[in-house]
Amino acid sequence: MSVALNIVVLAAGQGKRMNSRLPKVLQPLAGRALLAHVLDCARALAPQRLVVVHGHGGEQVRAAFAAETDIVWVEQASQLGTGHAVQQALPELVEGTVLVLYGDCPLVTPATLQRLLTAADAEGLAILTAELADPTGYGRIVRDAAGRVQRIVEHKDADPTERLIHEINTGFVAAPLHCLRDWLPRLHNGNAQGEYYLTDIVAQAVADGLTIATESPSWPGEADGVNDRRQLAAMERTLQRRQADGLLAAGVTLLDPDRFDLRGRLRVGRDVSIDVGCVFEGEVELGDDVRIGAHCVLKDVRIAAGTEVAPFSHLDGADIGRDARIGPYARLRPGTRLADAVHIGNFVEVKNSVVGHGSKANHLTYLGDADIGASVNVGAGTVTCNYDGANKWRTTIEDRVFVGSGSMLVAPVRLGEGATIGAGSTITRDAPPEQLTLERSRQASIAGWERPVKQPKS
Amino acid sequence: MSVALNIVVLAAGQGKRMNSRLPKVLQPLAGRALLAHVLDCARALAPQRLVVVHGHGGEQVRAAFAAETDIVWVEQASQLGTGHAVQQALPELVEGTVLVLYGDCPLVTPATLQRLLTAADAEGLAILTAELADPTGYGRIVRDAAGRVQRIVEHKDADPTERLIHEINTGFVAAPLHCLRDWLPRLHNGNAQGEYYLTDIVAQAVADGLTIATESPSWPGEADGVNDRRQLAAMERTLQRRQADGLLAAGVTLLDPDRFDLRGRLRVGRDVSIDVGCVFEGEVELGDDVRIGAHCVLKDVRIAAGTEVAPFSHLDGADIGRDARIGPYARLRPGTRLADAVHIGNFVEVKNSVVGHGSKANHLTYLGDADIGASVNVGAGTVTCNYDGANKWRTTIEDRVFVGSGSMLVAPVRLGEGATIGAGSTITRDAPPEQLTLERSRQASIAGWERPVKQPKS
Amino acid sequence: MSVALNIVVLAAGQGKRMNSRLPKVLQPLAGRALLAHVLDCARALAPQRLVVVHGHGGEQVRAAFAAETDIVWVEQASQLGTGHAVQQALPELVEGTVLVLYGDCPLVTPATLQRLLTAADAEGLAILTAELADPTGYGRIVRDAAGRVQRIVEHKDADPTERLIHEINTGFVAAPLHCLRDWLPRLHNGNAQGEYYLTDIVAQAVADGLTIATESPSWPGEADGVNDRRQLAAMERTLQRRQADGLLAAGVTLLDPDRFDLRGRLRVGRDVSIDVGCVFEGEVELGDDVRIGAHCVLKDVRIAAGTEVAPFSHLDGADIGRDARIGPYARLRPGTRLADAVHIGNFVEVKNSVVGHGSKANHLTYLGDADIGASVNVGAGTVTCNYDGANKWRTTIEDRVFVGSGSMLVAPVRLGEGATIGAGSTITRDAPPEQLTLERSRQASIAGWERPVKQPKS
Repeated sequence: MSVALNIVVLAAGQGKRMNSRLPKVLQPLAGRALLAHVLDCARALAPQRLVVVHGHGGEQVRAAFAAETDIVWVEQASQLGTGHAVQQALPELVEGTVLVLYGDCPLVTPATLQRLLTAADAEGLAILTAELADPTGYGRIVRDAAGRVQRIVEHKDADPTERLIHEINTGFVAAPLHCLRDWLPRLHNGNAQGEYYLTDIVAQAVADGLTIATESPSWPGEADGVNDRRQLAAMERTLQRRQADGLLAAGVTLLDPDRFDLRGRLRVGRDVSIDVGCVFEGEVELGDDVRIGAHCVLKDVRIAAGTEVAPFSHLDGADIGRDARIGPYARLRPGTRLADAVHIGNFVEVKNSVVGHGSKANHLTYLGDADIGASVNVGAGTVTCNYDGANKWRTTIEDRVFVGSGSMLVAPVRLGEGATIGAGSTITRDAPPEQLTLERSRQASIAGWERPVKQPKS
Repeated sequence: MSVALNIVVLAAGQGKRMNSRLPKVLQPLAGRALLAHVLDCARALAPQRLVVVHGHGGEQVRAAFAAETDIVWVEQASQLGTGHAVQQALPELVEGTVLVLYGDCPLVTPATLQRLLTAADAEGLAILTAELADPTGYGRIVRDAAGRVQRIVEHKDADPTERLIHEINTGFVAAPLHCLRDWLPRLHNGNAQGEYYLTDIVAQAVADGLTIATESPSWPGEADGVNDRRQLAAMERTLQRRQADGLLAAGVTLLDPDRFDLRGRLRVGRDVSIDVGCVFEGEVELGDDVRIGAHCVLKDVRIAAGTEVAPFSHLDGADIGRDARIGPYARLRPGTRLADAVHIGNFVEVKNSVVGHGSKANHLTYLGDADIGASVNVGAGTVTCNYDGANKWRTTIEDRVFVGSGSMLVAPVRLGEGATIGAGSTITRDAPPEQLTLERSRQASIAGWERPVKQPKS
Repeated sequence: MSVALNIVVLAAGQGKRMNSRLPKVLQPLAGRALLAHVLDCARALAPQRLVVVHGHGGEQVRAAFAAETDIVWVEQASQLGTGHAVQQALPELVEGTVLVLYGDCPLVTPATLQRLLTAADAEGLAILTAELADPTGYGRIVRDAAGRVQRIVEHKDADPTERLIHEINTGFVAAPLHCLRDWLPRLHNGNAQGEYYLTDIVAQAVADGLTIATESPSWPGEADGVNDRRQLAAMERTLQRRQADGLLAAGVTLLDPDRFDLRGRLRVGRDVSIDVGCVFEGEVELGDDVRIGAHCVLKDVRIAAGTEVAPFSHLDGADIGRDARIGPYARLRPGTRLADAVHIGNFVEVKNSVVGHGSKANHLTYLGDADIGASVNVGAGTVTCNYDGANKWRTTIEDRVFVGSGSMLVAPVRLGEGATIGAGSTITRDAPPEQLTLERSRQASIAGWERPVKQPKS
């Protein structure tokens, strides 16, 4: 049986350089708060305790995660340093290992942390260190001739030889709870910042004669933190590129991996192709051979195999069948369910509607709150008038109906199977099956009519 | 008279790392199969024989190029290596030089290959080698003190000194047919892969006392191959950037060369400007001073001088005159021919229609199968009702017609010269010239009418 | 009292490598002529004289800046070099310092030039030099053992030791007018180009026993010039990235700083978020918490706090209130004024119209020349028929009006307060308040009607 795991996430920083009213850990990365990414990672390690130490904007932070009842919230009322922050969490922890994460270091992966935990199980104290091409500003890892960690020296305290060290401290640390109970109360704040640094437990461990295990990130940047919006933007691109690479490896064609944004999860079949400039949000699922054209936005969409989405389409909350053709400029809104082989064309909006097999609405149409059968043809300029100013009503269009262009279908209304609606009609009562229904006046021409002439400007 | 040229394209690889049902050489680059690019390059050298060696997915590959009758197809039933592949092609070749290309190396240029052929004419065997900053994994070119190629050593067989060599073998080779007939049957497959390597003819040539000529690519990356989708995506960007640079040199303003995609051919006049995020497909021609706004998609379009296309336009199969104004959000579909000074505005779709000089359709309109004269004004919300559920019919709008907004023009129908159509009319019969034609009821108001009230949810 | 300042901008170059009919200094960068950027910078230094030396395409250049009356135009009829160019300007200058700028070096900043001027005030002659990683092609700054500038040696004249120098001459120079009057007439043109080089005044100053002050740019690239469209495109991206970084520092969230274009000025409140692919032109102001969705184009727009603009919106010349919801696919044209909480939805165009508090036009609508009150609901497919073929008329829609879908409102027309317009009506006369007004025929169905059948192709 393995050792109990506590995870403490430090999330008390203000992030002043973000220049925002939002606490730093709530800043969005790939559409979600920085802290949400860290919590996802933490939960993947199945901790017995998941503690978040909050401080600046604590109310906002707690509110943002109010539904996540596995979190134990601990307040750090004064920002007295990382060591002090962890110390606030100690009363909430169970005997076993303590892993310290950071609310503003959202890229770290469970695999790396698992290695760190394994090392801590073996050695007691394990720290995550990284080799940086330019280590300026970071605490350096000083090792003895045998390669054992001796101490961490802050950049400003490092002598010229120490500054040549490229191995730096990331801050991620795993240690037994009992050691932390011993070390943390003995930290000093006699430094420039007047803070209690978690880092200083390394020196305590060495003084106690412990060996300190080190592990390194799986990829450069994994342990990076974020302090301003420029770093946040850079991290956004790092994460997006990693997601893009994952999709490429999974067999997706991305016309430009640097112009791909995924803020959520994308599941794909085989030979999916995604053109430049697309943005995916929420939960998106694309079946085999689905092709997404340039500059589309998809959110919470499921698209079955063989369907093609043309450029400039905006799909949100839609479920689309096989071999459908959508767009360009199609707008699908939540509650849209399209059967196989449906065509939704340019400047067409569909909301909270079901469209049957092979039906088409190709031009300049609004379908809202409609139940549409199979093999229906909806002409250009058709509108389901679903709102009477107070209530929304449904429109029912049965199989094989032909709706002439420019029809206003005033709901609630039913067009019977095989009905034809004459172009330009406003339909306020049910249309019988198989008949032509229309609302129309006589066409008339006025001889001798004179066109308006240009008026003088008044 | 020059030596006869055979080109053998090796296209038998499966491309397993592509994670696709499509054979590797059919993966798209700039909108066309990798192999298509290689064949274009091959044909530019005017070979007497053009042989493609296929294997995995051979049926698919042959089908994709079924119309290209100059290709001699040779099957390599078992994947026994590049030497074996070329050997399969020998029976189809004519006396002269043999140039070996690769179906997954699509960036190589005729100019570079011509240099290789010239070197082969002089020396017998010529190979294309490249200097790589990181040659890891590649076969190294081992030369003697005099700089003569001695052999090619594979990375895994190279000793530490040889691994310092940055000159690598690209695989491209040109040799006399009679030499290949001599060398290829004598290749061995006593290597880790159990394959017959074409590379080994170099050792044979040296053993025969031949000098081996080398040439190098004209630019880094020219000889690159592609094995997975990440490499494919990187190659796409390399090619796009090269195309963009070519257009910049030709005097095009590209607001961002890294956000420009050309999948086909783009011919330009002087001082053309293309904003960010545009995608060009097929054959596109842009006249002098044409300006294309941000995020447009153009396919098989010809646009004459001085025309401006506003953002978010989607033009396919259209021929547009001078000084026209198109978009934003204009959708032109195949068969669209617009005369000079035509305006097609937002949310307007035009299909298989001819529009005369200076005519305008600026808002929310569908023009399909229409013949429209000069100086016509088409009001917002107009629809040509070209489809009766079974047939498509044409709409004719003569010169100077004013079509009021919201008109439904039920084809076949003709609006005579100078006719005016009253707003909101459904026109089912021809409208006489110069008259006002309308279809309209009396406007009525209902006093004491009460608006719907909010219903309780049932 | 400080020394009088003359600024001479050299703008006579043709820019042949631009491959354009436009003179080089009129090529656009971030939406404005290169020269306009230089003039902005010059004016920030408040010179007593601002002289532009023009040559190639001088008429075009002068015409482009005809409204800027502070410019003294001097013609350099023959392109005899930079020294000759400055000499042409001498008669227009006042006693004091002369600062020489270049019409094709638009990134230089007033802060850097101010440092150069301060150095010139102290030393007499001050030149701007830069350290380049690759100085190939540039004139090198040769200093003596004490670090004093001795001379500038052109790349082609430099010996191997001099070619190792990475400090190069940018061409920017400040000097007292009286020195230039002394030096310039004594320049020689005995060089490969047969030109009089301004650079040679450095040698003259050394010969005169003067010390030459040097300053360097504030950031790499600041002093860069542009000679072809590839360099222009690269400079565009440099400038855009710098602008993006400035906005990030100001607290804007940019989802991708490399897919952001600002051609003008963007003023922002707190916590503004801008998604990928947006283009800003002219003067744009975004209030607190404004969110701009992907792929939007905004020009001369003011948006108040809390408003959200969904993707693919095109806003030009609009003034938008708080907490409004715009788009996706909204097109706002000049003269649009939207009050707080207005909703303008997909495929809706608004032009020269005022929309009151909380009013909505969510689908497929054209509102042109309309005055719309508060709490109005405009149904899908509504058109204000503002143009009679000769004149534009206004539509007035008072508070609380409900406009049914597919309404054609033939201006001039007024819909009284609280009026309801029945769907599909063409309204040509004023609608009374609080009543239902409609234009409609009887709905009829035709039994035994037979649908059209597919015709044989003729």
